[in-house]
Amino acid sequence: MKGYRALIGALGASWLALASPAFADDGYSLWLRTSAPATGQAAVTRLGDSATLRLAESELRRALPAGTPPVVVATAAAPGIAALGLPFVGLGDEGYLVRRVTLAGRSVLLVAGNGDRGTLYGAFALLRALGTGDRAETVALRSAPKVKLRVLNHWDNLDGTVERGYAGQSLWDWWTLPDFDDPRYTDYARANASIGINGTVLNNVNAKTDSLTAPYIAKAAKLAAVFRPWGIKVYLSARFSAPIELGGLKTADPRDPAVAAWWRAKSDEIYRAIPDFGGFLVKANSEGQPGPRDYGASHADGANMLAAAVAPHGGIVMWRAFVYAETDPTDRAKQAYSEFKPLDGRFADNVLVQVKNGAIDFQPREPFHPLFGAMPKTPLMIEFQITKEYLGFATHLAYLGPLFAETLHAKTGRRRDETVADVVDGSAEGHKLTGMAGVANIGRDRDWSGSTFNQANWYAFGRLAWDPDLTSEGIAREWAAQTFGTDPQVVATTTAMMAGSREAVVDYTGAFGLAHLMATGHHYGPGPWVADLARPEWNPTYYHRADPDGIGFERGRGGSDAVDQYAPSVARQLARPETTPERELLWFHHVRWDRRMADGKTLWEDLVAHYDTGVGYVAGMQRQWDTLRDKIDAERWQKTATYLAIQQREARWWRDASLAYWMSVNHRPLPAGVAAPEHDLAWYKAQSYPHAPGHTS
Amino acid sequence: MKGYRALIGALGASWLALASPAFADDGYSLWLRTSAPATGQAAVTRLGDSATLRLAESELRRALPAGTPPVVVATAAAPGIAALGLPFVGLGDEGYLVRRVTLAGRSVLLVAGNGDRGTLYGAFALLRALGTGDRAETVALRSAPKVKLRVLNHWDNLDGTVERGYAGQSLWDWWTLPDFDDPRYTDYARANASIGINGTVLNNVNAKTDSLTAPYIAKAAKLAAVFRPWGIKVYLSARFSAPIELGGLKTADPRDPAVAAWWRAKSDEIYRAIPDFGGFLVKANSEGQPGPRDYGASHADGANMLAAAVAPHGGIVMWRAFVYAETDPTDRAKQAYSEFKPLDGRFADNVLVQVKNGAIDFQPREPFHPLFGAMPKTPLMIEFQITKEYLGFATHLAYLGPLFAETLHAKTGRRRDETVADVVDGSAEGHKLTGMAGVANIGRDRDWSGSTFNQANWYAFGRLAWDPDLTSEGIAREWAAQTFGTDPQVVATTTAMMAGSREAVVDYTGAFGLAHLMATGHHYGPGPWVADLARPEWNPTYYHRADPDGIGFERGRGGSDAVDQYAPSVARQLARPETTPERELLWFHHVRWDRRMADGKTLWEDLVAHYDTGVGYVAGMQRQWDTLRDKIDAERWQKTATYLAIQQREARWWRDASLAYWMSVNHRPLPAGVAAPEHDLAWYKAQSYPHAPGHTS
Repeated sequence: MKGYRALIGALGASWLALASPAFADDGYSLWLRTSAPATGQAAVTRLGDSATLRLAESELRRALPAGTPPVVVATAAAPGIAALGLPFVGLGDEGYLVRRVTLAGRSVLLVAGNGDRGTLYGAFALLRALGTGDRAETVALRSAPKVKLRVLNHWDNLDGTVERGYAGQSLWDWWTLPDFDDPRYTDYARANASIGINGTVLNNVNAKTDSLTAPYIAKAAKLAAVFRPWGIKVYLSARFSAPIELGGLKTADPRDPAVAAWWRAKSDEIYRAIPDFGGFLVKANSEGQPGPRDYGASHADGANMLAAAVAPHGGIVMWRAFVYAETDPTDRAKQAYSEFKPLDGRFADNVLVQVKNGAIDFQPREPFHPLFGAMPKTPLMIEFQITKEYLGFATHLAYLGPLFAETLHAKTGRRRDETVADVVDGSAEGHKLTGMAGVANIGRDRDWSGSTFNQANWYAFGRLAWDPDLTSEGIAREWAAQTFGTDPQVVATTTAMMAGSREAVVDYTGAFGLAHLMATGHHYGPGPWVADLARPEWNPTYYHRADPDGIGFERGRGGSDAVDQYAPSVARQLARPETTPERELLWFHHVRWDRRMADGKTLWEDLVAHYDTGVGYVAGMQRQWDTLRDKIDAERWQKTATYLAIQQREARWWRDASLAYWMSVNHRPLPAGVAAPEHDLAWYKAQSYPHAPGHTS
Repeated sequence: MKGYRALIGALGASWLALASPAFADDGYSLWLRTSAPATGQAAVTRLGDSATLRLAESELRRALPAGTPPVVVATAAAPGIAALGLPFVGLGDEGYLVRRVTLAGRSVLLVAGNGDRGTLYGAFALLRALGTGDRAETVALRSAPKVKLRVLNHWDNLDGTVERGYAGQSLWDWWTLPDFDDPRYTDYARANASIGINGTVLNNVNAKTDSLTAPYIAKAAKLAAVFRPWGIKVYLSARFSAPIELGGLKTADPRDPAVAAWWRAKSDEIYRAIPDFGGFLVKANSEGQPGPRDYGASHADGANMLAAAVAPHGGIVMWRAFVYAETDPTDRAKQAYSEFKPLDGRFADNVLVQVKNGAIDFQPREPFHPLFGAMPKTPLMIEFQITKEYLGFATHLAYLGPLFAETLHAKTGRRRDETVADVVDGSAEGHKLTGMAGVANIGRDRDWSGSTFNQANWYAFGRLAWDPDLTSEGIAREWAAQTFGTDPQVVATTTAMMAGSREAVVDYTGAFGLAHLMATGHHYGPGPWVADLARPEWNPTYYHRADPDGIGFERGRGGSDAVDQYAPSVARQLARPETTPERELLWFHHVRWDRRMADGKTLWEDLVAHYDTGVGYVAGMQRQWDTLRDKIDAERWQKTATYLAIQQREARWWRDASLAYWMSVNHRPLPAGVAAPEHDLAWYKAQSYPHAPGHTS
């Protein structure tokens, strides 16, 4: 044992991190850790053969702990499986069963789906169950995804930058593709497969036409080939004006036959290189992107033209509903609904409309988007932002599970108890084509997502896309146990930190439904005072409308009437401040600073208190993390501790800058005992961050 | 043994790469590999204490193979060492001794310098000696650096991009500095210390003033603190107009007392944060950068004003001589000499003039810069480019040792046998302040330099900066043995590949002294036809002057007379085509396509033959590398094989595009049996690479 220890000590190998916290762990392994040193001793038998089945087998061989009963990986069609009479019906192509069965007289643990992708997901599900404390002797799993397309959106540019990316360069080394197959592409696919993600849009929605040229199609095809055995399809963002820029046409009008022919030919070309190409994602007529409205055609005209081009190959189109400043200058929050609601029923069968979780833009808190439930004839794909553009970039610890779940579990009011999740997973209207998109937080940083805890947001997105009814707490526990080990103190402490971390960001950046208060361009830090940008809805002052008497954007019937974009029961509730949930009060209403809140205090007093709550929560996370110093490997512990210290300083900055500004508007004193801002307002206004990451447009 | 093998197999740990080629090695370890599994068993005793001495001790503990005799690390002043009577005189602060001695009655291997930095270098020298085949029983080393400042220049921007960088983002994560101490900063310092590099300029010579603001000084200070125990000083590139942009002055005229006072105060501020700050690197009045010439002052005026600001703190100024298009529109190659030669003797004692190895810009081959030997009263620092801006970016295998050595070992003609190395290391004129700069090829890619073989260029720069008289062949052997292991076949094959690889690039991009033939902006691929850029000296046609009769830039006395910038004996030789070395013929002369060369063939025939030689060399490297498939770990083998295939395709592209163009000018047929270009000239002209890496200006 002594010699063995010495050998191990000399290695410094990261798989020992769980057992020996002193070792460095650079986070590359994500939530996928092997059970070494006894690994490789479990007996795994594979029935049938395919690249995907072989991966299922090798994943189990790689990570099953010693002492696991014999495991068989198979599909439902393999010899001997049908006779077992297992409930494969309803599992579809991607669902799986993990069951103790007797096969050829032996008691084995069967991992099987109708198709090999189901089997692969089953293998990962088994490892997840064992990694979170289940016993191999008694494990029994059965699951199928509720959402068909579980897709990451990479806002990755062809020059290697990532818009709103805070984890280094783009993973895709376009320069050496298609020649060089970076082993990291496989590791990326494996991580996604482990949580059920089955699609990836490779390039930024603010798309360059180059991505549709032959060299870039070949590059995408190489990635598609790497991802295919892991059950992952490749999609591309398409620039709507490509027929002009690449095709030399005079127009990109979707009603022009030459335009449609160009896209058909381009699609045929892509499918020759990538037979299982997923389809196109399109941002049209938004923030300067070209689109069908440039020609007086509708979003449906544009989407359907593209959909016709990919339909012969089984492809789909994801058409984003994120548009603004075109049709309704009175309230940006109303514009997507105004533009898309009338188009319900006019989209082709292979089109999904991709709708952000809220009506503005991935703020720390937004009410659910009013389009959910309002377009029953159209499959609506929900779009979340996993990368934390508005929640502290890479450095702040903010677990987004609660944000995702809050939207998914919101009641639309359209039918009894109908939730946004019901709309997204198709159960509300019986749509079969369903999807969930997450704007990736993945880059070339060694730990993939810029921090260990950011990995949890990637994980949570995948798990919720598989099953939108999962709880964010349960997902956090799963993730923590796999990432840090099953020590109950570690799991309890990390999940406690995570639980309130997103609410803390809401609190220290602006509670009660305040939104879009950040500085310009890079979106880093506070800028509630910004009022000088060219378009009104670019300015924070447009959103908070603070004046000496009150604060908030009036979206009730006396204001923009955005509330009436919701179902009548919801609209009724939101129309009046008295019945609007306080956490969304200032999103929907302009109210007086001295309005009495539920707790009997004034809005101003409560708003101030929330800033302090948020800052205090971060201090609490620091204390909690300190208790784990001996339980977490040194490298991940130290980086997280450093990032928490940054977050603490910046939370205080958000609080102080915001209070200094509000006080300059409302001329109210701080409640007794509350600390004054550290600097005066001019100091906060003078802060400048010209080299903030992620700002590429 | 069986169980041990199984355990090892399960680990997949990279230290086994040398023994077991099947394992993956991502190249992160560079040339610093441990001798595991028996590591950690050598007895290492440290006499004295300092952070640097502790590093020397830990490096030896980490990597000394089992069976090494007891090792003592110490400085000359440690108890008992002086009595040994060892030759410490002449080793200076950084030199070292490694000697078998008897200390306190025990036979030990002593590693010692006059100062702890010397000891650290000695520890690395011992490991290098053992790693290249020396026996610990007989090893005896004594060495001191011939060059005082051995400095990397990082052309890293504050937004994380790297100008002419092909290995990913900047290592410096300015955004999380100074809070986060990325473990990679330590690994970077360690790698540099292992080859004797003792300084690093953190930011691009095309500098932003932000790097001189308080927040960025604090970030630089954090890096300096990490690097300090490794004997590495931090320098900053300074933007000459900073007194205007940061200081609010109306001028940056170096003769203005307010300007000098601003720089003094700024220097004081920097030294408060970084007590051992190295000093400033300045690119002035070149390629749009501001400088003293904007005010009618000289480069000496500018450099001396800055030098006075850092002199009280022991700092220095490295002032680049890379200027063009200001004073001499007739020949860009003459301009640095024209501008700087008259300033000899006018620079302050703590100024070095930093001169590129050649007079244009880091081309695959350039004659040595005529300033070397021409400014005897001024310390001239040589600047090499380690990053391969003009030699195939990250993907081409081109070992630059021969390029560096070719310049260093060139005879200046000023004194008998005086070489450029004699000028650079100060021996020619007795200068004590000497330096060598290398433009770094280091980024955040996992393997640091974009490919395994690019690591050799970083290594070779460091070794030649320590001792400019080393041979490139010897350095290649050292590097290969440490990087791939001492298997004689591996060392022989890899060094054979490396030996002619730079000459191959010369051959397939344009032999006989042709230069600057690359495409515009990104400098990727051939563009000899480019003739439409705004400034004449931006165009390849300016450099090659090809016409129906001949090719080459006439720099003899009938031309620009650049030859007379060299010492008379050299100028005499270069003045006539007949006595000019053929490898530099077209650099110095415009000659007829049908000129007879030494081998009896025409220039045109020989030029064509060189293209084919270059392409053939790459094919040869592919064959050589194939023989090592079972001797190199799979990951590094496969990546190198893929990159060689890219190089083969691109070498052919250079050849074909160049031949197609030359034939369009000279209307000559290809010699019999020579393959025609694959495409017509129009095809080559139409190639476009809008997203090529490294192009940030």
